[in-house]
Amino acid sequence: LKMNNMGVAPLWDGLMQFAKQEPASYHVPGHRHGQLYRQYIHETGLLKQGDVIDALAELARIDVTELSVTDDLHEPAGMIKEAQQKAATYFGADHTFFLVGGSTSGNLAIILSSCNVGDLIIVQRNVHKSIINGCKLAGVEVVFLSPDVEQMTGLMTVPSFSTLEAALHQYTEAKAVILTNPNYYGLSVKLEHYIELIHSYNIPVIVDEAHGAHYGLHTSLPQSALQVGADAVVQSTHKTLPALTMAAMLHIKGSRINLDRLQHNLAMLESSSPSYVLMASLDLARALMEHKGKEWIEQALQLIEELINWINKADLCIKLQQIDKSEQDLDQDPFRLLIYDSTTRMDGFELQREFEKYNIWVEMATTQYAVLVIHLSITEKDITQLKETILKITKSIEQKCYFNGHHSPSNRIHYINEATQISLPMKMERYKQYGSKKTILLDAAIGAKSAEMIVPYPPGIPILFEGETITASICEQIKVLTQLGARFQGNTTIEVGEIEVFMND
Amino acid sequence: LKMNNMGVAPLWDGLMQFAKQEPASYHVPGHRHGQLYRQYIHETGLLKQGDVIDALAELARIDVTELSVTDDLHEPAGMIKEAQQKAATYFGADHTFFLVGGSTSGNLAIILSSCNVGDLIIVQRNVHKSIINGCKLAGVEVVFLSPDVEQMTGLMTVPSFSTLEAALHQYTEAKAVILTNPNYYGLSVKLEHYIELIHSYNIPVIVDEAHGAHYGLHTSLPQSALQVGADAVVQSTHKTLPALTMAAMLHIKGSRINLDRLQHNLAMLESSSPSYVLMASLDLARALMEHKGKEWIEQALQLIEELINWINKADLCIKLQQIDKSEQDLDQDPFRLLIYDSTTRMDGFELQREFEKYNIWVEMATTQYAVLVIHLSITEKDITQLKETILKITKSIEQKCYFNGHHSPSNRIHYINEATQISLPMKMERYKQYGSKKTILLDAAIGAKSAEMIVPYPPGIPILFEGETITASICEQIKVLTQLGARFQGNTTIEVGEIEVFMND
Repeated sequence: LKMNNMGVAPLWDGLMQFAKQEPASYHVPGHRHGQLYRQYIHETGLLKQGDVIDALAELARIDVTELSVTDDLHEPAGMIKEAQQKAATYFGADHTFFLVGGSTSGNLAIILSSCNVGDLIIVQRNVHKSIINGCKLAGVEVVFLSPDVEQMTGLMTVPSFSTLEAALHQYTEAKAVILTNPNYYGLSVKLEHYIELIHSYNIPVIVDEAHGAHYGLHTSLPQSALQVGADAVVQSTHKTLPALTMAAMLHIKGSRINLDRLQHNLAMLESSSPSYVLMASLDLARALMEHKGKEWIEQALQLIEELINWINKADLCIKLQQIDKSEQDLDQDPFRLLIYDSTTRMDGFELQREFEKYNIWVEMATTQYAVLVIHLSITEKDITQLKETILKITKSIEQKCYFNGHHSPSNRIHYINEATQISLPMKMERYKQYGSKKTILLDAAIGAKSAEMIVPYPPGIPILFEGETITASICEQIKVLTQLGARFQGNTTIEVGEIEVFMND
Repeated sequence: LKMNNMGVAPLWDGLMQFAKQEPASYHVPGHRHGQLYRQYIHETGLLKQGDVIDALAELARIDVTELSVTDDLHEPAGMIKEAQQKAATYFGADHTFFLVGGSTSGNLAIILSSCNVGDLIIVQRNVHKSIINGCKLAGVEVVFLSPDVEQMTGLMTVPSFSTLEAALHQYTEAKAVILTNPNYYGLSVKLEHYIELIHSYNIPVIVDEAHGAHYGLHTSLPQSALQVGADAVVQSTHKTLPALTMAAMLHIKGSRINLDRLQHNLAMLESSSPSYVLMASLDLARALMEHKGKEWIEQALQLIEELINWINKADLCIKLQQIDKSEQDLDQDPFRLLIYDSTTRMDGFELQREFEKYNIWVEMATTQYAVLVIHLSITEKDITQLKETILKITKSIEQKCYFNGHHSPSNRIHYINEATQISLPMKMERYKQYGSKKTILLDAAIGAKSAEMIVPYPPGIPILFEGETITASICEQIKVLTQLGARFQGNTTIEVGEIEVFMND
């Protein structure tokens, strides 16, 4: 492998070289460089060369442990350190930490490293649950900011600039701001001004960029959070780049994050036997992208454009949602397609099931959209299959009676009461027993703490977290959303005007 | 693969079947069933069939994400649930949770699930750092119990029965007991009476059995913690059974652990994109052991016995440490060999380096021992290589001057002051700033909180954790150990009679 001989992938290369020397293992793991899998294959004679268990046996050659030559993720000094440095350079960070516990472990660790118990931080309300869990583990006070609405799609992005401005002005004691960008639908906000504003308060900006590991790797792609000055960025490398599932990275830029403390927290939360296969896949992903990324991105973008043009031209009931290009502050990830039925006869979940009928597996669905992640390896043949499938689904839609269709584009429900855009500070605790619960009329619940998480759908953003105080404005917001026809996630009585609250005892 | 056709490995089998249907992925991960690796191989022409990247590409076929057919680790209802149930049955648990974050994630989650902030728990002092971290995250008060000493080896096992008895009697408010068994050296204590005693207080026993995933799988092996009644057992399946590194299991038996709370905490600490490859390797490991385990264990034990007999007969300076078989309460893991130089010319670290010269990689070393993990796949050829290498190392030892040797078996230093066997309760906190530090004479430090962790070596068990109060008995213990010639880990002044403490401010 020339790439490795050039030393482009220090960890992958180092593990290969060690494997080639056919070391005799008297250490963990128990498969012994895959030997036990090979023994099974041999003894039972059940497997043919090329089977997945055979691949497992081969890959297990590099599934090693901390030895004098294999470095240590939690105290890197050799090939892991080198691989992390190469990643930092490529992604534009000062320091990069390989994560074997997914973006989850990065989000937990960075929150524990940015604030002490009782500190106040400002957090976008529509975040991944790992951010909420990190806040609970850290025992911080959180001011939640409601996200802004993209008008054409009704999808939520980050909070508006003015909301953030007001929150920072009101809570000058805030120790950090946490944003999520892009969202699950590939919509993202240009964060440069946000970050300048936050830095004017001299506190760090943490960006959960889980869905944007590919951002900034080509001029045709939106800029990455690191490129516009974020202090800490968590990326699910596995989601859009060629790393194995659960392999992610945490990038640090500048000096607002204490690296020792971060390293300590990562070592606390992540396995003390981190997977070398996952780590090597991160090194490989970076090396492959550095080597071939520009070319792959261009090829893929061309094919995506072809598909988009075809859909637009074909004038089908199936459409692609694209944001208004005049919206200067917004970006749309070209690798994420939002497909919907413009006649509203099929909702996103039905579209997803239709695709699955034809062995096409999409990323997710909402009432409105089937969301497709397009990969760097997309081919002309894939595009042809997609076109054919879209035509078949179109036929199914056309055969469908309007009466069974879902009602007017429900994703347009996005009433946010201005008074609730900035929440009251909420004390987050890992395991809080608030006492017993009762279900009461919503109107009677003002001032009480909610015993349930209230998530209207759309947009799927929690209006109330468990333990959050119910204010008059939140109450009004819930009522308006109910009138507009929003549904609520989970087994809740909120649609009939009742809510479960904690009793004061 | 017949095994799978028999449905013996539901998750591995299910993933295989899904892969065979060649699904078109428009979802994460970004390698697209390994397609991007294959594309790279094809485009560059740099790789030959059989290379590890080729294996990665094949294995990536089952590196999927949560789809309608692939179940969800955090809410298992399909093939992951089935695989976990089969594991529970095989290992003798009521419920088994697959861990993708190693035993670390299991230890953290079970501690968070067994106690609330401020609760008191009883913990063996010589535990893996993940237990200490779990206690910090949980914010509990810990009473540490010093371990007992195995007389022949000087190695520490679990606390003595009488120490545990006294601690439970003294701290009736204790909410759980945490033990580690076996230790890193393959020594284990028969826990049945311990567990009966703890259960008489109606609190759960949590056993970190990271190094004993193979325990109880054959009558020639020591009994597992589950077999003698433990409530929660964490096993590093990857360490001694054929699972990939970082794949582990948490087993629950009985009703003393709240399963909902545990599931909640696991979902908090582990990735929301758990690796299907790791999970499938757990299912495969269990299936392989169920199918072939007895046979493999017997073959391996026979070869190990041959090696032991040869070493004993050969009368070399290199010896194998074996415990006194008359010690009824102790077990020794036959799959872990403690090799030492009986002439004390080479310490364990030098033995480790000698082995490495011959491409033999051992698990770990101490001043005394090189520790070898013997695998189920061990062959006659491996034994021959080991014998030859031992003879070569023997020659190196014989050429070595006695003068350069290390002093009398230093692992025999094991003075434990009786008064320190049961520590004062210590409040564990995630991130405690105790204030500034100063270095003072040990004698003047009584009553102060240590600002450093003091770990005499041997035996490598912390006498003082950071933040722990220095008592007169601990002070005496440190002095005696220093006089006996113990060394202390890290950059400490303790050997010259000074200790760093936190100032009261």
